[in-house]
Amino acid sequence: MREGRARGCFGSPRAELGENQAERLFAERGMHAVSNRQISDAASQGNNAAVCYHFGTRTDLLRAIEAKHRVPIEQLRAGMLADLGPSAGLSDWVDCLVRPLTGHLEELGNPSWYARFAAQAMADPAYREVVTKDAMSSPYLVQVIDGITGCLADLPKRVRYERIVMARNLLMHTCAEHEGALAARRATRSPWPRAAEGLTDAITGLWQAPVRSTAGIR
Amino acid sequence: MREGRARGCFGSPRAELGENQAERLFAERGMHAVSNRQISDAASQGNNAAVCYHFGTRTDLLRAIEAKHRVPIEQLRAGMLADLGPSAGLSDWVDCLVRPLTGHLEELGNPSWYARFAAQAMADPAYREVVTKDAMSSPYLVQVIDGITGCLADLPKRVRYERIVMARNLLMHTCAEHEGALAARRATRSPWPRAAEGLTDAITGLWQAPVRSTAGIR
Repeated sequence: MREGRARGCFGSPRAELGENQAERLFAERGMHAVSNRQISDAASQGNNAAVCYHFGTRTDLLRAIEAKHRVPIEQLRAGMLADLGPSAGLSDWVDCLVRPLTGHLEELGNPSWYARFAAQAMADPAYREVVTKDAMSSPYLVQVIDGITGCLADLPKRVRYERIVMARNLLMHTCAEHEGALAARRATRSPWPRAAEGLTDAITGLWQAPVRSTAGIR
Repeated sequence: MREGRARGCFGSPRAELGENQAERLFAERGMHAVSNRQISDAASQGNNAAVCYHFGTRTDLLRAIEAKHRVPIEQLRAGMLADLGPSAGLSDWVDCLVRPLTGHLEELGNPSWYARFAAQAMADPAYREVVTKDAMSSPYLVQVIDGITGCLADLPKRVRYERIVMARNLLMHTCAEHEGALAARRATRSPWPRAAEGLTDAITGLWQAPVRSTAGIR
Protein backbone atom coordinates (compact mmCIF):
# COMPACT_ATOMS: atom_id res chain seq x y z
CA MET A 1 0.00 0.00 0.00
CA ARG A 2 1.35 3.38 -0.87
CA GLU A 3 -0.98 5.82 0.85
CA GLY A 4 0.65 8.93 2.13
CA ARG A 5 3.21 9.09 -0.67
CA ALA A 6 3.94 12.41 -2.25
CA ARG A 7 1.52 12.98 -5.08
CA GLY A 8 2.81 13.95 -8.49
CA CYS A 9 1.79 17.35 -9.77
CA PHE A 10 3.24 19.68 -12.41
CA GLY A 11 6.53 21.24 -11.46
CA SER A 12 7.47 18.76 -8.73
CA PRO A 13 10.26 16.19 -9.12
CA ARG A 14 7.66 13.46 -8.97
CA ALA A 15 5.68 15.13 -11.75
CA GLU A 16 8.81 15.10 -13.87
CA LEU A 17 9.16 11.37 -13.28
CA GLY A 18 5.54 10.95 -14.34
CA GLU A 19 6.13 13.01 -17.47
CA ASN A 20 9.22 11.03 -18.43
CA GLN A 21 7.46 7.72 -17.95
CA ALA A 22 4.38 8.91 -19.83
CA GLU A 23 6.51 10.08 -22.75
CA ARG A 24 8.25 6.72 -22.90
CA LEU A 25 5.02 4.70 -22.69
CA PHE A 26 3.33 6.84 -25.34
CA ALA A 27 6.34 6.49 -27.64
CA GLU A 28 6.76 2.74 -27.23
CA ARG A 29 3.17 1.52 -27.03
CA GLY A 30 1.14 4.26 -28.68
CA MET A 31 -0.91 6.99 -27.12
CA HIS A 32 -4.12 4.96 -27.38
CA ALA A 33 -2.70 2.00 -25.46
CA VAL A 34 -1.61 3.77 -22.31
CA SER A 35 -3.98 4.33 -19.40
CA ASN A 36 -3.53 6.91 -16.68
CA ARG A 37 -3.07 4.01 -14.26
CA GLN A 38 -0.12 2.73 -16.30
CA ILE A 39 1.49 6.16 -16.27
CA SER A 40 1.08 6.46 -12.54
CA ASP A 41 2.26 2.89 -11.94
CA ALA A 42 5.31 3.42 -14.08
CA ALA A 43 6.17 6.49 -12.08
CA SER A 44 5.66 4.52 -8.88
CA GLN A 45 3.02 6.93 -7.77
CA GLY A 46 0.80 4.03 -6.91
CA ASN A 47 -2.49 5.65 -6.22
CA ASN A 48 -4.22 6.06 -9.55
CA ALA A 49 -7.03 8.13 -8.09
CA ALA A 50 -4.53 10.62 -6.72
CA VAL A 51 -2.44 11.13 -9.81
CA CYS A 52 -2.85 14.55 -11.32
CA TYR A 53 -3.06 13.18 -14.82
CA HIS A 54 -6.56 11.82 -14.62
CA PHE A 55 -8.88 11.65 -17.58
CA GLY A 56 -9.56 15.14 -18.84
CA THR A 57 -6.12 16.59 -18.10
CA ARG A 58 -4.09 14.40 -20.40
CA THR A 59 -3.79 17.54 -22.52
CA ASP A 60 -1.97 19.19 -19.59
CA LEU A 61 0.41 16.26 -19.37
CA LEU A 62 1.16 16.48 -23.10
CA ARG A 63 1.74 20.22 -22.88
CA ALA A 64 4.08 19.74 -19.91
CA ILE A 65 6.12 17.16 -21.85
CA GLU A 66 6.29 19.43 -24.91
CA ALA A 67 7.29 22.43 -22.79
CA LYS A 68 10.09 20.46 -21.13
CA HIS A 69 11.68 19.74 -24.54
CA ARG A 70 10.96 23.16 -26.02
CA VAL A 71 13.47 24.86 -23.70
CA PRO A 72 16.64 23.01 -24.86
CA ILE A 73 15.46 22.96 -28.49
CA GLU A 74 14.98 26.71 -28.47
CA GLN A 75 18.35 27.21 -26.79
CA LEU A 76 20.01 25.33 -29.66
CA ARG A 77 17.99 27.37 -32.15
CA ALA A 78 18.97 30.67 -30.50
CA GLY A 79 22.63 29.67 -30.80
CA MET A 80 22.29 28.84 -34.49
CA LEU A 81 20.43 32.08 -35.20
CA ALA A 82 23.13 34.08 -33.45
CA ASP A 83 25.70 32.56 -35.83
CA LEU A 84 23.62 33.24 -38.95
CA GLY A 85 25.19 35.89 -41.19
CA PRO A 86 23.29 38.48 -43.23
CA SER A 87 23.78 36.41 -46.38
CA ALA A 88 21.92 33.39 -45.00
CA GLY A 89 20.11 31.49 -47.72
CA LEU A 90 17.14 29.16 -47.71
CA SER A 91 19.05 26.04 -46.71
CA ASP A 92 20.67 27.91 -43.80
CA TRP A 93 17.24 28.85 -42.49
CA VAL A 94 15.96 25.31 -43.02
CA ASP A 95 18.99 24.08 -41.06
CA CYS A 96 17.80 26.29 -38.19
CA LEU A 97 14.45 24.53 -38.41
CA VAL A 98 15.87 21.01 -38.49
CA ARG A 99 19.08 20.85 -36.46
CA PRO A 100 17.80 22.17 -33.12
CA LEU A 101 15.37 19.24 -33.07
CA THR A 102 17.81 16.56 -34.26
CA GLY A 103 20.52 18.01 -32.03
CA HIS A 104 18.26 17.82 -29.02
CA LEU A 105 17.32 14.22 -29.87
CA GLU A 106 21.01 13.37 -30.15
CA GLU A 107 21.71 14.97 -26.76
CA LEU A 108 18.96 12.86 -25.19
CA GLY A 109 20.91 9.72 -26.13
CA ASN A 110 19.63 6.44 -27.51
CA PRO A 111 16.93 5.41 -26.87
CA SER A 112 15.03 8.68 -26.80
CA TRP A 113 11.26 8.86 -26.97
CA TYR A 114 10.41 12.47 -27.62
CA ALA A 115 10.09 12.38 -31.43
CA ARG A 116 7.73 9.39 -31.35
CA PHE A 117 5.71 11.05 -28.63
CA ALA A 118 5.50 14.39 -30.44
CA ALA A 119 4.61 12.80 -33.79
CA GLN A 120 1.63 11.07 -32.24
CA ALA A 121 0.53 14.24 -30.48
CA MET A 122 0.73 16.10 -33.82
CA ALA A 123 -1.39 13.45 -35.56
CA ASP A 124 -4.01 13.37 -32.82
CA PRO A 125 -7.08 15.53 -33.50
CA ALA A 126 -7.50 16.24 -29.78
CA TYR A 127 -4.00 17.65 -29.39
CA ARG A 128 -2.82 18.87 -32.79
CA GLU A 129 -4.07 22.43 -32.42
CA VAL A 130 -2.86 23.03 -28.89
CA VAL A 131 0.55 21.49 -29.67
CA THR A 132 0.94 23.64 -32.79
CA LYS A 133 -0.18 26.78 -30.97
CA ASP A 134 2.27 26.16 -28.11
CA ALA A 135 5.11 25.57 -30.59
CA MET A 136 4.41 28.85 -32.34
CA SER A 137 4.82 30.68 -29.02
CA SER A 138 8.59 30.15 -29.44
CA PRO A 139 10.02 33.42 -30.80
CA TYR A 140 13.04 31.70 -32.36
CA LEU A 141 10.85 29.24 -34.28
CA VAL A 142 8.76 32.14 -35.57
CA GLN A 143 11.97 33.92 -36.60
CA VAL A 144 13.07 30.83 -38.57
CA ILE A 145 9.74 30.52 -40.37
CA ASP A 146 9.89 34.23 -41.22
CA GLY A 147 13.43 33.68 -42.50
CA ILE A 148 12.33 30.79 -44.72
CA THR A 149 9.33 32.60 -46.16
CA GLY A 150 11.47 35.72 -46.61
CA CYS A 151 13.62 33.73 -49.06
CA LEU A 152 10.49 32.77 -51.01
CA ALA A 153 8.68 36.06 -51.41
CA ASP A 154 7.32 35.09 -54.83
CA LEU A 155 5.49 32.05 -53.50
CA PRO A 156 1.71 32.58 -53.36
CA LYS A 157 0.48 33.01 -49.79
CA ARG A 158 -1.65 29.86 -49.91
CA VAL A 159 1.29 27.74 -51.09
CA ARG A 160 3.54 29.26 -48.39
CA TYR A 161 1.05 28.26 -45.73
CA GLU A 162 0.61 24.77 -47.22
CA ARG A 163 4.35 24.20 -47.23
CA ILE A 164 4.77 25.30 -43.61
CA VAL A 165 2.30 22.57 -42.66
CA MET A 166 4.07 20.06 -44.94
CA ALA A 167 7.53 20.88 -43.58
CA ARG A 168 6.34 20.55 -39.99
CA ASN A 169 4.78 17.14 -40.62
CA LEU A 170 7.74 15.96 -42.66
CA LEU A 171 10.23 16.99 -39.99
CA MET A 172 8.54 15.50 -36.97
CA HIS A 173 7.33 12.25 -38.51
CA THR A 174 10.66 11.55 -40.16
CA CYS A 175 12.44 12.14 -36.84
CA ALA A 176 9.99 9.77 -35.16
CA GLU A 177 10.83 7.02 -37.66
CA HIS A 178 14.56 7.63 -37.25
CA GLU A 179 14.23 7.54 -33.47
CA GLY A 180 12.31 4.27 -33.58
CA ALA A 181 14.78 2.67 -35.98
CA LEU A 182 17.71 3.81 -33.88
CA ALA A 183 16.16 2.46 -30.69
CA ALA A 184 15.34 -0.90 -32.31
CA ARG A 185 18.84 -1.39 -33.73
CA ARG A 186 20.49 -0.20 -30.53
CA ALA A 187 23.05 1.43 -32.77
CA THR A 188 25.97 3.01 -31.02
CA ARG A 189 26.67 5.47 -33.82
CA SER A 190 24.25 8.36 -33.90
CA PRO A 191 22.46 8.87 -37.20
CA TRP A 192 21.13 12.27 -36.22
CA PRO A 193 23.66 14.49 -38.05
CA ARG A 194 23.04 12.45 -41.20
CA ALA A 195 19.30 12.50 -40.70
CA ALA A 196 19.51 16.28 -40.30
CA GLU A 197 21.33 16.64 -43.63
CA GLY A 198 18.76 14.51 -45.40
CA LEU A 199 15.92 16.48 -43.89
CA THR A 200 17.42 19.87 -44.67
CA ASP A 201 18.01 18.82 -48.30
CA ALA A 202 14.47 17.49 -48.68
CA ILE A 203 12.71 20.39 -46.96
CA THR A 204 14.75 22.91 -48.96
CA GLY A 205 13.69 21.06 -52.12
CA LEU A 206 10.08 21.07 -51.00
CA TRP A 207 10.16 24.84 -50.44
CA GLN A 208 11.90 25.52 -53.76
CA ALA A 209 9.58 23.33 -55.83
CA PRO A 210 8.00 25.25 -58.74
CA VAL A 211 4.27 25.86 -58.41
CA ARG A 212 2.70 24.05 -61.35
CA SER A 213 -0.60 25.86 -61.47
CA THR A 214 -1.38 29.33 -60.22
CA ALA A 215 -4.94 29.34 -61.54
CA GLY A 216 -7.22 30.67 -58.86
CA ILE A 217 -4.49 30.88 -56.24
CA ARG A 218 -4.97 33.57 -53.67
CA MET B 1 -30.84 -4.99 -22.88
CA ARG B 2 -29.58 -6.09 -26.24
CA GLU B 3 -28.66 -9.72 -25.76
CA GLY B 4 -29.31 -11.92 -28.74
CA ARG B 5 -28.46 -9.27 -31.31
CA ALA B 6 -26.32 -10.22 -34.26
CA ARG B 7 -22.70 -9.88 -33.27
CA GLY B 8 -20.35 -7.88 -35.43
CA CYS B 9 -17.55 -9.77 -37.08
CA PHE B 10 -15.36 -9.05 -40.09
CA GLY B 11 -17.11 -9.29 -43.41
CA SER B 12 -20.67 -8.95 -42.14
CA PRO B 13 -22.80 -5.82 -42.74
CA ARG B 14 -22.73 -5.16 -39.02
CA ALA B 15 -18.94 -5.38 -39.01
CA GLU B 16 -18.87 -2.78 -41.77
CA LEU B 17 -21.03 -0.50 -39.64
CA GLY B 18 -18.62 -1.03 -36.76
CA GLU B 19 -15.65 -0.24 -38.99
CA ASN B 20 -17.24 2.95 -40.30
CA GLN B 21 -18.11 4.15 -36.82
CA ALA B 22 -14.67 3.25 -35.50
CA GLU B 23 -12.99 5.16 -38.33
CA ARG B 24 -15.11 8.23 -37.60
CA LEU B 25 -14.52 8.11 -33.84
CA PHE B 26 -10.78 7.63 -34.28
CA ALA B 27 -10.63 10.53 -36.74
CA GLU B 28 -12.70 12.95 -34.70
CA ARG B 29 -11.62 12.19 -31.13
CA GLY B 30 -8.23 10.56 -31.54
CA MET B 31 -7.28 6.93 -31.39
CA HIS B 32 -6.33 7.14 -27.71
CA ALA B 33 -9.71 8.49 -26.65
CA VAL B 34 -11.94 5.79 -28.10
CA SER B 35 -12.77 2.65 -26.16
CA ASN B 36 -13.98 -0.60 -27.66
CA ARG B 37 -17.27 0.05 -25.83
CA GLN B 38 -17.70 3.36 -27.64
CA ILE B 39 -17.08 1.71 -30.99
CA SER B 40 -19.61 -1.00 -30.26
CA ASP B 41 -22.14 1.49 -28.86
CA ALA B 42 -21.78 3.73 -31.87
CA ALA B 43 -22.44 0.78 -34.13
CA SER B 44 -25.46 -0.12 -31.99
CA GLN B 45 -23.97 -3.49 -31.31
CA GLY B 46 -24.67 -3.02 -27.66
CA ASN B 47 -22.90 -5.89 -26.00
CA ASN B 48 -19.35 -4.79 -25.42
CA ALA B 49 -18.24 -8.22 -24.29
CA ALA B 50 -19.49 -9.75 -27.53
CA VAL B 51 -17.97 -7.31 -29.96
CA CYS B 52 -15.20 -8.80 -32.04
CA TYR B 53 -13.00 -5.80 -31.58
CA HIS B 54 -11.98 -6.45 -27.99
CA PHE B 55 -8.64 -5.46 -26.60
CA GLY B 56 -5.93 -7.29 -28.49
CA THR B 57 -7.57 -7.26 -31.91
CA ARG B 58 -7.75 -3.55 -32.48
CA THR B 59 -5.01 -4.19 -35.02
CA ASP B 60 -7.48 -6.37 -36.95
CA LEU B 61 -10.03 -3.57 -36.91
CA LEU B 62 -7.45 -1.10 -38.23
CA ARG B 63 -6.37 -3.48 -40.96
CA ALA B 64 -9.99 -4.04 -41.99
CA ILE B 65 -10.55 -0.27 -42.27
CA GLU B 66 -7.37 0.16 -44.30
CA ALA B 67 -8.26 -2.74 -46.58
CA LYS B 68 -11.71 -1.28 -47.25
CA HIS B 69 -10.17 1.94 -48.57
CA ARG B 70 -7.29 0.29 -50.37
CA VAL B 71 -9.60 -1.23 -52.98
CA PRO B 72 -11.02 2.01 -54.46
CA ILE B 73 -7.66 3.81 -54.09
CA GLU B 74 -5.90 1.08 -56.04
CA GLN B 75 -8.66 1.11 -58.70
CA LEU B 76 -8.02 4.82 -59.25
CA ARG B 77 -4.27 4.15 -59.37
CA ALA B 78 -4.67 1.35 -61.91
CA GLY B 79 -6.64 3.69 -64.15
CA MET B 80 -3.97 6.40 -63.96
CA LEU B 81 -1.18 3.92 -64.63
CA ALA B 82 -3.02 2.61 -67.70
CA ASP B 83 -3.07 6.17 -69.10
CA LEU B 84 0.61 6.79 -68.40
CA GLY B 85 2.66 7.04 -71.60
CA PRO B 86 6.23 5.79 -72.09
CA SER B 87 7.56 9.33 -71.66
CA ALA B 88 6.17 9.71 -68.15
CA GLY B 89 8.37 11.92 -65.99
CA LEU B 90 8.86 12.22 -62.25
CA SER B 91 5.88 14.49 -61.62
CA ASP B 92 3.62 12.09 -63.59
CA TRP B 93 4.68 9.25 -61.33
CA VAL B 94 4.24 11.42 -58.23
CA ASP B 95 0.75 12.28 -59.50
CA CYS B 96 0.03 8.54 -59.49
CA LEU B 97 1.11 8.46 -55.86
CA VAL B 98 -0.97 11.47 -54.77
CA ARG B 99 -4.17 11.62 -56.82
CA PRO B 100 -5.57 8.14 -56.15
CA LEU B 101 -5.63 9.09 -52.44
CA THR B 102 -7.01 12.62 -52.85
CA GLY B 103 -9.45 11.37 -55.49
CA HIS B 104 -10.74 8.71 -53.14
CA LEU B 105 -11.10 11.25 -50.34
CA GLU B 106 -13.03 13.52 -52.69
CA GLU B 107 -15.33 10.65 -53.68
CA LEU B 108 -16.07 9.95 -50.00
CA GLY B 109 -17.60 13.42 -49.72
CA ASN B 110 -17.26 15.94 -46.92
CA PRO B 111 -16.85 15.11 -44.09
CA SER B 112 -14.61 12.13 -44.66
CA TRP B 113 -12.57 10.56 -41.89
CA TYR B 114 -10.16 8.19 -43.59
CA ALA B 115 -7.12 10.49 -43.89
CA ARG B 116 -7.25 11.48 -40.21
CA PHE B 117 -7.68 7.84 -39.24
CA ALA B 118 -4.80 6.64 -41.44
CA ALA B 119 -2.45 9.42 -40.30
CA GLN B 120 -2.90 8.38 -36.68
CA ALA B 121 -2.41 4.71 -37.54
CA MET B 122 0.82 5.63 -39.36
CA ALA B 123 2.11 7.61 -36.37
CA ASP B 124 1.26 4.88 -33.87
CA PRO B 125 4.18 2.61 -32.94
CA ALA B 126 1.82 -0.35 -32.47
CA TYR B 127 0.38 -0.10 -35.98
CA ARG B 128 2.93 1.67 -38.18
CA GLU B 129 4.70 -1.43 -39.39
CA VAL B 130 1.65 -3.55 -40.13
CA VAL B 131 -0.06 -0.63 -41.91
CA THR B 132 3.02 0.04 -44.04
CA LYS B 133 3.46 -3.63 -44.85
CA ASP B 134 -0.17 -4.00 -45.88
CA ALA B 135 0.07 -0.89 -48.08
CA MET B 136 3.10 -2.31 -49.88
CA SER B 137 1.08 -5.40 -50.79
CA SER B 138 -0.63 -3.23 -53.44
CA PRO B 139 1.06 -3.99 -56.76
CA TYR B 140 0.07 -0.63 -58.27
CA LEU B 141 1.61 1.29 -55.37
CA VAL B 142 4.82 -0.72 -55.75
CA GLN B 143 4.78 0.07 -59.49
CA VAL B 144 4.50 3.79 -58.74
CA ILE B 145 7.36 3.74 -56.25
CA ASP B 146 9.47 1.86 -58.81
CA GLY B 147 8.51 4.48 -61.40
CA ILE B 148 9.56 7.32 -59.10
CA THR B 149 12.89 5.77 -58.13
CA GLY B 150 13.48 4.84 -61.79
CA CYS B 151 13.51 8.57 -62.58
CA LEU B 152 16.15 9.12 -59.90
CA ALA B 153 18.70 6.42 -60.59
CA ASP B 154 21.59 8.66 -59.48
CA LEU B 155 20.22 9.11 -55.99
CA PRO B 156 22.16 7.12 -53.37
CA LYS B 157 20.20 4.13 -52.12
CA ARG B 158 20.03 5.41 -48.56
CA VAL B 159 18.63 8.76 -49.70
CA ARG B 160 16.07 7.02 -51.95
CA TYR B 161 14.81 5.01 -49.00
CA GLU B 162 14.75 8.08 -46.73
CA ARG B 163 12.70 10.01 -49.27
CA ILE B 164 10.16 7.21 -49.71
CA VAL B 165 9.50 7.44 -45.97
CA MET B 166 9.37 11.24 -46.14
CA ALA B 167 6.96 11.28 -49.10
CA ARG B 168 4.64 8.79 -47.42
CA ASN B 169 4.49 10.80 -44.21
CA LEU B 170 4.15 14.08 -46.06
CA LEU B 171 1.29 12.77 -48.19
CA MET B 172 -0.83 11.19 -45.49
CA HIS B 173 -0.38 13.82 -42.78
CA THR B 174 -1.03 16.69 -45.18
CA CYS B 175 -4.20 14.96 -46.39
CA ALA B 176 -5.27 14.50 -42.77
CA GLU B 177 -4.90 18.22 -42.09
CA HIS B 178 -6.77 19.09 -45.28
CA GLU B 179 -9.55 16.71 -44.39
CA GLY B 180 -9.89 18.16 -40.89
CA ALA B 181 -9.91 21.74 -42.18
CA LEU B 182 -12.48 20.88 -44.82
CA ALA B 183 -14.72 19.16 -42.29
CA ALA B 184 -14.49 22.07 -39.85
CA ARG B 185 -15.32 24.70 -42.47
CA ARG B 186 -18.10 22.63 -43.95
CA ALA B 187 -16.92 23.97 -47.29
CA THR B 188 -19.04 23.07 -50.28
CA ARG B 189 -16.20 23.44 -52.78
CA SER B 190 -13.78 20.55 -52.77
CA PRO B 191 -10.16 21.52 -52.16
CA TRP B 192 -8.89 18.08 -53.09
CA PRO B 193 -7.79 18.76 -56.69
CA ARG B 194 -5.90 21.82 -55.44
CA ALA B 195 -4.45 19.94 -52.51
CA ALA B 196 -3.31 17.26 -54.94
CA GLU B 197 -1.48 19.83 -57.11
CA GLY B 198 0.26 21.31 -54.09
CA LEU B 199 1.29 17.88 -52.88
CA THR B 200 2.56 16.71 -56.26
CA ASP B 201 4.63 19.89 -56.63
CA ALA B 202 6.10 19.57 -53.14
CA ILE B 203 6.83 15.84 -53.31
CA THR B 204 8.41 16.23 -56.76
CA GLY B 205 10.61 19.00 -55.30
CA LEU B 206 11.51 16.80 -52.36
CA TRP B 207 12.62 13.96 -54.67
CA GLN B 208 14.59 16.27 -56.93
CA ALA B 209 16.42 18.06 -54.11
CA PRO B 210 20.21 17.92 -54.54
CA VAL B 211 22.03 15.80 -51.99
CA ARG B 212 24.32 18.17 -50.12
CA SER B 213 26.74 15.67 -48.70
CA THR B 214 27.54 12.24 -50.04
CA ALA B 215 30.30 11.54 -47.50
CA GLY B 216 29.90 8.04 -46.23
CA ILE B 217 26.63 7.47 -48.08
CA ARG B 218 25.95 3.92 -49.09
